[in-house]
Amino acid sequence: MQDASKLTYLGLHNLQHRGQEGAGIVSSDGEKLYQHRDRGLLSDAFKDPADLDRLIGDCAIGHVRYSTTGRNSIQNVQPFLYHFLDGDVALAHNGNLVNAVSLRNKLEKQGAIFQSDSDTEILIHLIRNHISDGFIPALKKSLNEIHGGFAFLLLQKDRMIAALDPNGIRPLCIGKYDNGAYVVASETCALDIVGAEFVRDVQPGELIIIDKDGLHIDHFTEHTQLAVCSMEYIYFARPDSIIHGVNVHNARKNMGRLLARQNPVEADMVIGVPNSSLSAASGYAEELGLPYEMGLVKNQYVARTFIQPTQALREKSVRLKLSAVRGVVAGKKIAVIDDSIVRGTTSKQIVQMLKDAGAKEVHLRIASPQFRFPCFYGIDISTRSELMAAHYSTEEMRKIIGADSLDFLSVDNLIKAVSIPDAKGAPFGGLTVAYFNGQYPTKLDDYEEGYLSSLNEQEKRQRKERQNESL
Amino acid sequence: MQDASKLTYLGLHNLQHRGQEGAGIVSSDGEKLYQHRDRGLLSDAFKDPADLDRLIGDCAIGHVRYSTTGRNSIQNVQPFLYHFLDGDVALAHNGNLVNAVSLRNKLEKQGAIFQSDSDTEILIHLIRNHISDGFIPALKKSLNEIHGGFAFLLLQKDRMIAALDPNGIRPLCIGKYDNGAYVVASETCALDIVGAEFVRDVQPGELIIIDKDGLHIDHFTEHTQLAVCSMEYIYFARPDSIIHGVNVHNARKNMGRLLARQNPVEADMVIGVPNSSLSAASGYAEELGLPYEMGLVKNQYVARTFIQPTQALREKSVRLKLSAVRGVVAGKKIAVIDDSIVRGTTSKQIVQMLKDAGAKEVHLRIASPQFRFPCFYGIDISTRSELMAAHYSTEEMRKIIGADSLDFLSVDNLIKAVSIPDAKGAPFGGLTVAYFNGQYPTKLDDYEEGYLSSLNEQEKRQRKERQNESL
Amino acid sequence: MQDASKLTYLGLHNLQHRGQEGAGIVSSDGEKLYQHRDRGLLSDAFKDPADLDRLIGDCAIGHVRYSTTGRNSIQNVQPFLYHFLDGDVALAHNGNLVNAVSLRNKLEKQGAIFQSDSDTEILIHLIRNHISDGFIPALKKSLNEIHGGFAFLLLQKDRMIAALDPNGIRPLCIGKYDNGAYVVASETCALDIVGAEFVRDVQPGELIIIDKDGLHIDHFTEHTQLAVCSMEYIYFARPDSIIHGVNVHNARKNMGRLLARQNPVEADMVIGVPNSSLSAASGYAEELGLPYEMGLVKNQYVARTFIQPTQALREKSVRLKLSAVRGVVAGKKIAVIDDSIVRGTTSKQIVQMLKDAGAKEVHLRIASPQFRFPCFYGIDISTRSELMAAHYSTEEMRKIIGADSLDFLSVDNLIKAVSIPDAKGAPFGGLTVAYFNGQYPTKLDDYEEGYLSSLNEQEKRQRKERQNESL
Amino acid sequence: MQDASKLTYLGLHNLQHRGQEGAGIVSSDGEKLYQHRDRGLLSDAFKDPADLDRLIGDCAIGHVRYSTTGRNSIQNVQPFLYHFLDGDVALAHNGNLVNAVSLRNKLEKQGAIFQSDSDTEILIHLIRNHISDGFIPALKKSLNEIHGGFAFLLLQKDRMIAALDPNGIRPLCIGKYDNGAYVVASETCALDIVGAEFVRDVQPGELIIIDKDGLHIDHFTEHTQLAVCSMEYIYFARPDSIIHGVNVHNARKNMGRLLARQNPVEADMVIGVPNSSLSAASGYAEELGLPYEMGLVKNQYVARTFIQPTQALREKSVRLKLSAVRGVVAGKKIAVIDDSIVRGTTSKQIVQMLKDAGAKEVHLRIASPQFRFPCFYGIDISTRSELMAAHYSTEEMRKIIGADSLDFLSVDNLIKAVSIPDAKGAPFGGLTVAYFNGQYPTKLDDYEEGYLSSLNEQEKRQRKERQNESL
Repeated sequence: MQDASKLTYLGLHNLQHRGQEGAGIVSSDGEKLYQHRDRGLLSDAFKDPADLDRLIGDCAIGHVRYSTTGRNSIQNVQPFLYHFLDGDVALAHNGNLVNAVSLRNKLEKQGAIFQSDSDTEILIHLIRNHISDGFIPALKKSLNEIHGGFAFLLLQKDRMIAALDPNGIRPLCIGKYDNGAYVVASETCALDIVGAEFVRDVQPGELIIIDKDGLHIDHFTEHTQLAVCSMEYIYFARPDSIIHGVNVHNARKNMGRLLARQNPVEADMVIGVPNSSLSAASGYAEELGLPYEMGLVKNQYVARTFIQPTQALREKSVRLKLSAVRGVVAGKKIAVIDDSIVRGTTSKQIVQMLKDAGAKEVHLRIASPQFRFPCFYGIDISTRSELMAAHYSTEEMRKIIGADSLDFLSVDNLIKAVSIPDAKGAPFGGLTVAYFNGQYPTKLDDYEEGYLSSLNEQEKRQRKERQNESL
Repeated sequence: MQDASKLTYLGLHNLQHRGQEGAGIVSSDGEKLYQHRDRGLLSDAFKDPADLDRLIGDCAIGHVRYSTTGRNSIQNVQPFLYHFLDGDVALAHNGNLVNAVSLRNKLEKQGAIFQSDSDTEILIHLIRNHISDGFIPALKKSLNEIHGGFAFLLLQKDRMIAALDPNGIRPLCIGKYDNGAYVVASETCALDIVGAEFVRDVQPGELIIIDKDGLHIDHFTEHTQLAVCSMEYIYFARPDSIIHGVNVHNARKNMGRLLARQNPVEADMVIGVPNSSLSAASGYAEELGLPYEMGLVKNQYVARTFIQPTQALREKSVRLKLSAVRGVVAGKKIAVIDDSIVRGTTSKQIVQMLKDAGAKEVHLRIASPQFRFPCFYGIDISTRSELMAAHYSTEEMRKIIGADSLDFLSVDNLIKAVSIPDAKGAPFGGLTVAYFNGQYPTKLDDYEEGYLSSLNEQEKRQRKERQNESL
Repeated sequence: MQDASKLTYLGLHNLQHRGQEGAGIVSSDGEKLYQHRDRGLLSDAFKDPADLDRLIGDCAIGHVRYSTTGRNSIQNVQPFLYHFLDGDVALAHNGNLVNAVSLRNKLEKQGAIFQSDSDTEILIHLIRNHISDGFIPALKKSLNEIHGGFAFLLLQKDRMIAALDPNGIRPLCIGKYDNGAYVVASETCALDIVGAEFVRDVQPGELIIIDKDGLHIDHFTEHTQLAVCSMEYIYFARPDSIIHGVNVHNARKNMGRLLARQNPVEADMVIGVPNSSLSAASGYAEELGLPYEMGLVKNQYVARTFIQPTQALREKSVRLKLSAVRGVVAGKKIAVIDDSIVRGTTSKQIVQMLKDAGAKEVHLRIASPQFRFPCFYGIDISTRSELMAAHYSTEEMRKIIGADSLDFLSVDNLIKAVSIPDAKGAPFGGLTVAYFNGQYPTKLDDYEEGYLSSLNEQEKRQRKERQNESL
Repeated sequence: MQDASKLTYLGLHNLQHRGQEGAGIVSSDGEKLYQHRDRGLLSDAFKDPADLDRLIGDCAIGHVRYSTTGRNSIQNVQPFLYHFLDGDVALAHNGNLVNAVSLRNKLEKQGAIFQSDSDTEILIHLIRNHISDGFIPALKKSLNEIHGGFAFLLLQKDRMIAALDPNGIRPLCIGKYDNGAYVVASETCALDIVGAEFVRDVQPGELIIIDKDGLHIDHFTEHTQLAVCSMEYIYFARPDSIIHGVNVHNARKNMGRLLARQNPVEADMVIGVPNSSLSAASGYAEELGLPYEMGLVKNQYVARTFIQPTQALREKSVRLKLSAVRGVVAGKKIAVIDDSIVRGTTSKQIVQMLKDAGAKEVHLRIASPQFRFPCFYGIDISTRSELMAAHYSTEEMRKIIGADSLDFLSVDNLIKAVSIPDAKGAPFGGLTVAYFNGQYPTKLDDYEEGYLSSLNEQEKRQRKERQNESL
């Protein structure tokens, strides 16, 4: 499609929330591939109109970097572009592989040289190992060798290829223009801004090939089982996106409603932590018939981090991002809805800030369950030691945070709130809820050992039982 | 106070919404004044920690530039710093003077040379003309020679001075630290982030002097009459700020409530245009008992403007900033609350975007009256030709915008919604509502002629009658 | 002339040696004036082609900044551009005024406000004070009120004006195109690069006006006496420039020849300190029939100053700029020709570097007299305390520097070497040699007091006698 | 050695003339390797002191990029740094491989993935292919598989390795500090600035290993034959460098002297084209007893290339770099010495510029032979089509260039002028003079076919005969 790289820029603009550390686009004019990438936000990486103008051609893929592994070097900014004698290949990846380290070790022993720290690069090495089979067969073989959560976009001079892991952990959707051109994106909000119509979600294990003859659906495996990352619904995706038939804002509002039924509170008002918790907060308020107020304001501008004048302010660093609305909360009993608690430090600062602004009582309600197990599929929490709920009971957490009460949404209610239509019969409603119950949809491979050693006795016993069941 | 320039930076961070075209700080160490300023956002203007580190001393003033007059040149970025034989003076200004052009002409004829296009520079020339009287008397004389809406901050090596116009059109408040140090800022949200306690609003016609002996309150005129710019409450100020005793979020929520009583609508849900209309929208929803939903999402990232791939998308440029939430609005009757209509182009795009996303009906409710007369006091609308409501009836506007219905808050309800406590007895409740009814609290001076010529016969007659009344 | 701003850029490129701290151009399209300026080299200040493209019109003036007074702020980068009701004026200045401080004080007392630290700005204030007389009469009056060395270029929308001080201390020349367009520049090398033909030097006290009717010669004073700054010939100007009929390279070669006759040396070879001393060195070698060798090499690239790894290397900082050619100097008796000695630190390092490279003897010959008195006319040496020759005898200097012998060109030989054709009868051959003998061609005004206090008893007595003579 | 990266920066500063397109340094602290690299000059690539400060450790290698192959992408800026499970390796390369394309093809077929366009990267792939033998044996094998001119520096966490091709085509030398630390650099001028003492040149086929036990000399081949690139002496190296015992300035001066004997001219003066031809010019002048003058001046500042105001000036683009000294050359017969003629366009512009400045006659003497065959070893002339002397006779060249006479140094005199002491008995005195006679010291491999097809019948016959001889 004409202006492919500019449309890709627009799509990335609406996907910027998925990664802020780097951005890049590779385009194809049918003969050659053209690349531009740099560190920082999309608007930093593409400062000069000429950067886009050079990306000619009517096909393009783009990427915004959110680092789970690898240094913040330009080397790691995607899409990666590789020049081969038999043609160029560009590669963009969302997700995280659990067997990256062992695959990389094996490849390196065979003479492979890696240019990035990223697990993404492994795929191209695997493909080259199998290339004598032809590109698509080599790609399929390779996709079966990698484990974890992954959505890949590949660009060759004459086609674009998309592939999704066997559990569909990361979202990926297909859009279409009136003129027959196709778009593939992580979230539907990217289709909206480029003016494409939503066609369908990419399904687990699918290989989508788009070329001059249109869109072809293929598979690299038949052993699939939908298990979308629940974090997408809880806080990662944009509220206007629709993932597997469920609008994210609606899912969050449902989480708020169910939380209200599960753990109501007698308060003068309900407030949400902007921006990701506002949907849940309005659901909570509506369910209980309480006023929904703006008790916290988010500063939409980013402050440079070198501004830390006094120790006192350093401890209140959340104030650079959030402010309490004194005129709203003073003298009131407040129900504060937040989407999740990871380390607990922000929650503590928010409670303190509200009390400083005169709130009489602060009741904290979390619109997701206790985050007790790490995510190995692309959300940047990969060690248990950072997870507050892995180490403290809810009452202990309440005390540390300083709230007058604290409650979490149950796993069952989370699943109920999302209700993915095509996940009927799937365990946990087609969701990955491993972060709350430890039941991962894939093997853990390289992470297995570290993970096991982080479990306490009871957790180890439970895990063993589950594994026996699943045999 | 220690770290004065860093605290000033923090304060500016929370005032960034008031101006994004430039930022600067001038500090004093008791002997000399130090300046840093540059174009762009605060984080662009202060890229290097050293920029702040050089601003030593325990007193500082800062400014974020919002241009009403003057080119976007570094020359125009404030605070201005002037070196004189009898000491340095720095100057920052919020507002707009209505007799700037005639004063500048007069001064230039006397040999004055201006370095900026800004009306702010006039004050220092006036002061220097009267300097033989001493600085404070010269300043007072000068403040009586300028007309319009203005809040000035001046810094000398050993004191800081604040001055507010006789109508208090622009907000200005005083805060205090436990250690006795004082802070002056446009909005209370700046006091909150620096950890200072609110003391009081600066009153119309006051001259506040802060030096080593503390805070002194003086006046440059006794002919004062409170007339705060109503735009501050409607959309300019931050929702967490409190201006003359009224919290901005609460004022907006009241506007929404009163609008609901005045112009209810039968809708499936109420949505607000983020971010400034969310308070009003929640008030509107609450009053009618309708669900308050997130039907529009704001992209928190800024897109480079050179991305305009196709004519079709150019016409939908609002999509770079806003997205409709298809999963929420599809098939529904929507009440959309917006804070104001200026040119009407954005409103039209929003309605179109909601209909594209499947909304069945879109009823537009504006939480302020028809904007029919220009602002001459510092909000960037100074010609009538741009104001949709100056040229069309409400029904004509509805048709152009494409809404299913359209209504505006009445002036009386606006005044009622704000209810400034210390404005009892003041015309229009202590507010400037000239933008809606043409009754300006000051002479128009240089703007008078152009303004008159823009009026139609009826408006001219009404104006004449009002002037007779006020004699 | 078409492409006026681009030609100005080219001219500045060849004048870059005259100032590296900032660069700017102002152009006129006959209606308005357009400005671009920034700190750093020309290529830093004009990074973007668009910077030049915006400077439309067929008339332009430019400037490269060499700071003698004022901070390194963009505020001080010329040409200055002033907007007045009666038209814009741009201003560029080469030189230094000796009564700048007293004039500024006087003007400020009258209410003038200065935007820069530069003495240049004084002229525009003086002009505005007299503006009721008309622009040219006001300019003439103003030029008579300032003292020192100055060459001014002014641009108005419809004409360009050049003015030179009554002693012609700074060089200024006129060139012409075949199509009748004129060019004014500090040095003829700027005419060469833009393809203009040399017409004549601007004479002391002249006012040159160039407008659509061509070039007009006027005067602001008849009390003139040529006294070109001898530093221009010694090291400041480019060797390809011709000033008052004398080619700079030839003048330097003559200095070398006369120095050879005055102070010959028995050496194996002659080497010059690149680049400014190469002409004198070749003259010295030729006169004595000695081989002229490349014993020192200049690094044409600039090193960042933060590279100072060890104390040992810091003391040899000249090595970042110069290298001794070991293969040339090892085991040899060397005559090194340098153009001048200011502080003596570089000379000491050069001698050391040559000895480190194996030179057997190093005889230093300076192709100018002892620099004992400051320059108040625009070369950046304005205090005596920095001048080695003001404090030490030649033998003391030799010891400190570590040379095997040291000699300086005599003032008489300097004058003889230059021999300005149209300076017949002028004291010192039309040259300012005050730096060597203390006899300044102008009053010293603001510098008088400080200068006198720096003299020793003998110097004071001599000065008194000279002043009596000149009465 | 302490401050290793800062000393490396200094060394690169003195080697900047060898490459201006990129610069980088990799350091080792004994555990890890640290890299910084960027495009542009050294001072562009290292803008921030922190860039160097992060390169900790007491061992470092650096590189300045001069592109013969590959795009101007950061990907191509060296040293390259590779992370392997068995340790990091950094790699810097000076030269060009003649079998790069065929090796790359072969490697790629084996699954290798290249990150740069550079032939340098091939070495690391070869090493990894042989790595099971151990690093040094793998390196030796790899060095025997590559052909061409190459000098490699490798850095591992605990040692630095240098290797030079079997003909020693590119220069490489070893220096030493008093404290026992070693330095390896392309030219001795880099040793001078870092304060290290010259030890010896690296010999053809040597492998130098420097670790905590000192310096070890090894070989990767015994089939060596010295054939230094003669271009290093003619114009590439710095005049203060000493290569295989011959000072570059002295060699150039000898070229001038021998050229004077071979082709004297009756002229008023001799001038050189700055800077690389000044040594030869002074030799030429001395030999003939003619005055050596500065008839051309080089602008030491770089102009932005977007300044091309008129067609007339575009044709005189050399004026941005060079100016004729009118006061010197007007009315004179000039002998101009230049180091070489490649395309002839610059020579033509120089002659024209001198004539425009009034020169009566311009006699061009080239201090090297006719450049008729391409360089495949790292000087950026790899196609014959660009070489003026490959297509025209000397008289034809003279006419095109517009000189009054034209002569070139003979190959024999070139060899005589250089006279490498340890090249006794080597063909062509230890020099590669293939650019003048087509007799390359190595096989041409990938270039063979293209090269042959560029030869005319006579050249082909000669080549065949030479090959028969050499069998």
